[in-house]
Amino acid sequence: MAEMRLIDVKKEILSDNQARAAENRELLRRNRVFMVNLMASPGAGKTSLILHTIRELQEAFRIGVIEGDIASAVDAEKVAAAGVPAVQLRTGGFCHLDATMISMALQEMELAKLDLVIVENVGNLVCPAEFDLGENKKAMILSIPEGDDKPLKYPLMFSVTDALVINKMDYLGGEADFDMTAFMARIQSLNQTVRTFKVSCKTGEGLESWTHWLRDEIASCRGAVPETIQ
Amino acid sequence: MAEMRLIDVKKEILSDNQARAAENRELLRRNRVFMVNLMASPGAGKTSLILHTIRELQEAFRIGVIEGDIASAVDAEKVAAAGVPAVQLRTGGFCHLDATMISMALQEMELAKLDLVIVENVGNLVCPAEFDLGENKKAMILSIPEGDDKPLKYPLMFSVTDALVINKMDYLGGEADFDMTAFMARIQSLNQTVRTFKVSCKTGEGLESWTHWLRDEIASCRGAVPETIQ
Repeated sequence: MAEMRLIDVKKEILSDNQARAAENRELLRRNRVFMVNLMASPGAGKTSLILHTIRELQEAFRIGVIEGDIASAVDAEKVAAAGVPAVQLRTGGFCHLDATMISMALQEMELAKLDLVIVENVGNLVCPAEFDLGENKKAMILSIPEGDDKPLKYPLMFSVTDALVINKMDYLGGEADFDMTAFMARIQSLNQTVRTFKVSCKTGEGLESWTHWLRDEIASCRGAVPETIQ
Repeated sequence: MAEMRLIDVKKEILSDNQARAAENRELLRRNRVFMVNLMASPGAGKTSLILHTIRELQEAFRIGVIEGDIASAVDAEKVAAAGVPAVQLRTGGFCHLDATMISMALQEMELAKLDLVIVENVGNLVCPAEFDLGENKKAMILSIPEGDDKPLKYPLMFSVTDALVINKMDYLGGEADFDMTAFMARIQSLNQTVRTFKVSCKTGEGLESWTHWLRDEIASCRGAVPETIQ
């Protein structure tokens, strides 16, 4: 029997990523920019939530968006059309954003002129949860049609997120067979500190609680009520 | 319409990888080590081919193996049991090896005491083809039960490989509906310089042509017939 060594590649990669995330976090802190990392499955409503958030907050805050996408640039085009500067990270098949990619994007943004950066991560409930981007807060969306069992299947993302937006509430009680009590118990067992928001990006229901939370987080990150809304 | 910028992440990653691959290649050259990067789908016979190659060549050459695997270490254990030092790269979900991972593995090996390093890439016909590891030659296996249409579906790997081992030839004419003439025409249209070897790791058929090719490549890499077989 010859010698055998084991290298845990993922551990090494995550450790490198952690170092780069810390650099991003410091860059954001120096510029007093609040960054939120928005994660979800494809179709959960990430772009809709971002467009709504832009509409509600763009008078009070200077916003930039980083759009992660495997192949297209359609989401970044929608965001830019809404009047907010966007950087599109086309991953070319990669299933998540990492801190190095975010560092590339931050270099393209005028951080001194921004209060809030929203990162739309690649649509995927698995890998994005593993990678710290240097964000202030992680947020995720779970939409009603995806089912109440998702915390059982993808526990990591539900465990690490700071905010959980439950979207497409308008489906509840209709076609969707979604047990909200069981779902909330599953969330509670994974994450005792998560803030939850029940919303519908279609009807507008509940969205003010989400934007209110975001306003408070941005203000506390900037150390005071931002000058622009004083 | 605000400004929108596009960053092609994959291009940046591949460019970084290329630089690291060049470092690996230089390290191997200085140590007169020949490295082959073996790619294939899961179950095509990578580990069987490696074990056969070890048996045939370990008297003539000093061999080391780098085993890429998503989760387990079983292949590295088989290789070590065959008397050859092995480094297991556990990728933790990543679908390919890259030059940085290979650099980690090469640092764990006594290159001055080796003639041949065989890399068993992660089982996948897509991503491994994109990443130069710094190897001298790329080799791939296509097994008969996988079907003759694979060059149409995964053209990149068939285009970039230096050697193509067609394994499980014992299935031909039996259950397998494999049109060898059509398959070879597809290969020819993608890659005019590829060396092909029709083998069966089960019956041993054709394997001497593969090991003969490998002997010649190692010898030419070392600049002469290796001392150990003079």
